[in-house]
Amino acid sequence: MNVSHMTSHLGEWLRGSGPESDVVVSTRIRLARNLAGEPFTTRATPHQKAEVESRLREVVELLELEQPLRYVSVAAMPAIDRQFLVERQLISRELAGVLEGPRGVAFDEPETVSLMVNEEDHLRLQSMRSGLELEAAWATIDRVDDAIESRVEYAFTDEFGYLTACPTNVGTGMRASVLLHLPALGLAKQIDKAFKALQKINLVVRGLYGEGSRALGDFFQISNQITLGKSEVASLSDIRTVIHEIIKYERMARTTLMREARQNILDKVARALGTLQSATMMTSEETMELLSAVRLGVHLKLVGDLSPLTVNELFIHTQPAHLQKLMGEPLDGEARNAARATYLRNRLRTAGSSS
Amino acid sequence: MNVSHMTSHLGEWLRGSGPESDVVVSTRIRLARNLAGEPFTTRATPHQKAEVESRLREVVELLELEQPLRYVSVAAMPAIDRQFLVERQLISRELAGVLEGPRGVAFDEPETVSLMVNEEDHLRLQSMRSGLELEAAWATIDRVDDAIESRVEYAFTDEFGYLTACPTNVGTGMRASVLLHLPALGLAKQIDKAFKALQKINLVVRGLYGEGSRALGDFFQISNQITLGKSEVASLSDIRTVIHEIIKYERMARTTLMREARQNILDKVARALGTLQSATMMTSEETMELLSAVRLGVHLKLVGDLSPLTVNELFIHTQPAHLQKLMGEPLDGEARNAARATYLRNRLRTAGSSS
Repeated sequence: MNVSHMTSHLGEWLRGSGPESDVVVSTRIRLARNLAGEPFTTRATPHQKAEVESRLREVVELLELEQPLRYVSVAAMPAIDRQFLVERQLISRELAGVLEGPRGVAFDEPETVSLMVNEEDHLRLQSMRSGLELEAAWATIDRVDDAIESRVEYAFTDEFGYLTACPTNVGTGMRASVLLHLPALGLAKQIDKAFKALQKINLVVRGLYGEGSRALGDFFQISNQITLGKSEVASLSDIRTVIHEIIKYERMARTTLMREARQNILDKVARALGTLQSATMMTSEETMELLSAVRLGVHLKLVGDLSPLTVNELFIHTQPAHLQKLMGEPLDGEARNAARATYLRNRLRTAGSSS
Repeated sequence: MNVSHMTSHLGEWLRGSGPESDVVVSTRIRLARNLAGEPFTTRATPHQKAEVESRLREVVELLELEQPLRYVSVAAMPAIDRQFLVERQLISRELAGVLEGPRGVAFDEPETVSLMVNEEDHLRLQSMRSGLELEAAWATIDRVDDAIESRVEYAFTDEFGYLTACPTNVGTGMRASVLLHLPALGLAKQIDKAFKALQKINLVVRGLYGEGSRALGDFFQISNQITLGKSEVASLSDIRTVIHEIIKYERMARTTLMREARQNILDKVARALGTLQSATMMTSEETMELLSAVRLGVHLKLVGDLSPLTVNELFIHTQPAHLQKLMGEPLDGEARNAARATYLRNRLRTAGSSS
């Protein structure tokens, strides 16, 4: 597969709109499934994995969905294309790099559904949406799951529910994640306070790129921890309640900041934009931090001529693989930092702080 | 005196040209003198100080110089106007604020000569030049000194030379200072190395605003320490030799930086300019640091549409008293930071890094 054409658009889930999109970037729900009678991928021989892949590929390609899924083998893909799909959040870092052997991913053109084959489990189904859309994401992935289950037998017991390679997924196999942007709570140093309620009801917070990643730019993923003894609907309801609480805190923090420190916020946003418009070297980490401030500025209407979609696009396009696709050549670290700065300067030329 | 008209121009010594002006901002020479038969200012009564002031004022106003000197009483001046003259370096902080009683300053319109009355000594004569101009500054101040000495009797003994209130000035009473901009040595962390030679020959390094001030923006003042047992000409010769050494080091450091870290320098300059063009709050300290990078960029030809004169003007105009004069109203700290940022944004709108 040539992924280069994909640089010209973004996944539907990154369009920057949807419910509560001032705070909620996106919603993802994934299901972990395994085929009955097949060893888990961690114990399977390459031959067995190839068999799982070919069975699931066939099923996936026959699914009758609104948007057809296209299957691509990740094993056969150049490293940069795999990295590209990771940046797009269509596949995990593990599927891209750590795992070996037959494996792949199927996704639709708007990138709202992605199915990874031979990740930690035989099948990882994922649905992505812009904004806070737990119901819609659940409805989509549940439908896809049912359609697949009508054609294959999943590993399932009445006692445990769906069986998975890692015990933390046994039961529903469901992990719902909501990506939040909490810059005002970050500035007010109230992130920990806002997250306090999470642990009590077994929700987990992570940075943008999943487990172990730092919370760059005040982006946080909140997801459920429990998959056993609690229905999908009950889990989603818990998450929804907490997310609405956190959204409320963040909005209050923004209101307070604008009332009590308007000049400082304006200055922070204006400087972030000014730096993005002028630097000639720029790491992806700094890009993330600066775009975080700009995103806040867009939602506080402190920045003119810049849409949430453009900001999201810059987040994605400035990551290493996207950048190299856009530039049409492989670039080492230093050259990437220069290319990233040039790209940002050009894209943001006309944007201005409304001071 | 109304000083507001003075915001429309800068002293001759800030025009940003003159010999070695890529590294040397300016040259100043001052002489400390006291009237024979009068107590030093520290021991004088207000009445005696008033008498000294009136005698010296009369002498000063009768001097026949190319540019006539105008005498103004500092005691009678509003605090903001005194601060304005300090920022202009026409009077010392001490004359502006710490000292009390009758005192004043005479200076010419191009601000190349300033004579402070009743500072630490009865008379402090000062000559300022743009770039490295030790000879010219000396010739000027020596001429003014002779002209005054033909009309008054200075406190002088054959054994010690000119007598001064502080023993560190006894002898010639001369302090020559050269203001250097050493950003490349600063970046290369070689400032201390470059200054090593200074102590051996009794030269002193200070930050921009004299004793005790930090070296903001890599601006350093080098001056002689010895006034006793060494002629003016010998002292100036020592300074000249060392300054030329330091200039050589700084230029070598710039060449090395441009060869080995061109991208980093360009980025630093571009970001400094971008921040000055976009921030909405700006302290004078940060202004100094950022303008230091821009000044380096101008001399390395990395910045278009910006003259050394403009950079110097921004250094002076963004200081508190100048800023308030320019804005036409008194401003508190926060309002000044906002006004400073607005002023810088407007003045630098058209400047661009040549990347």
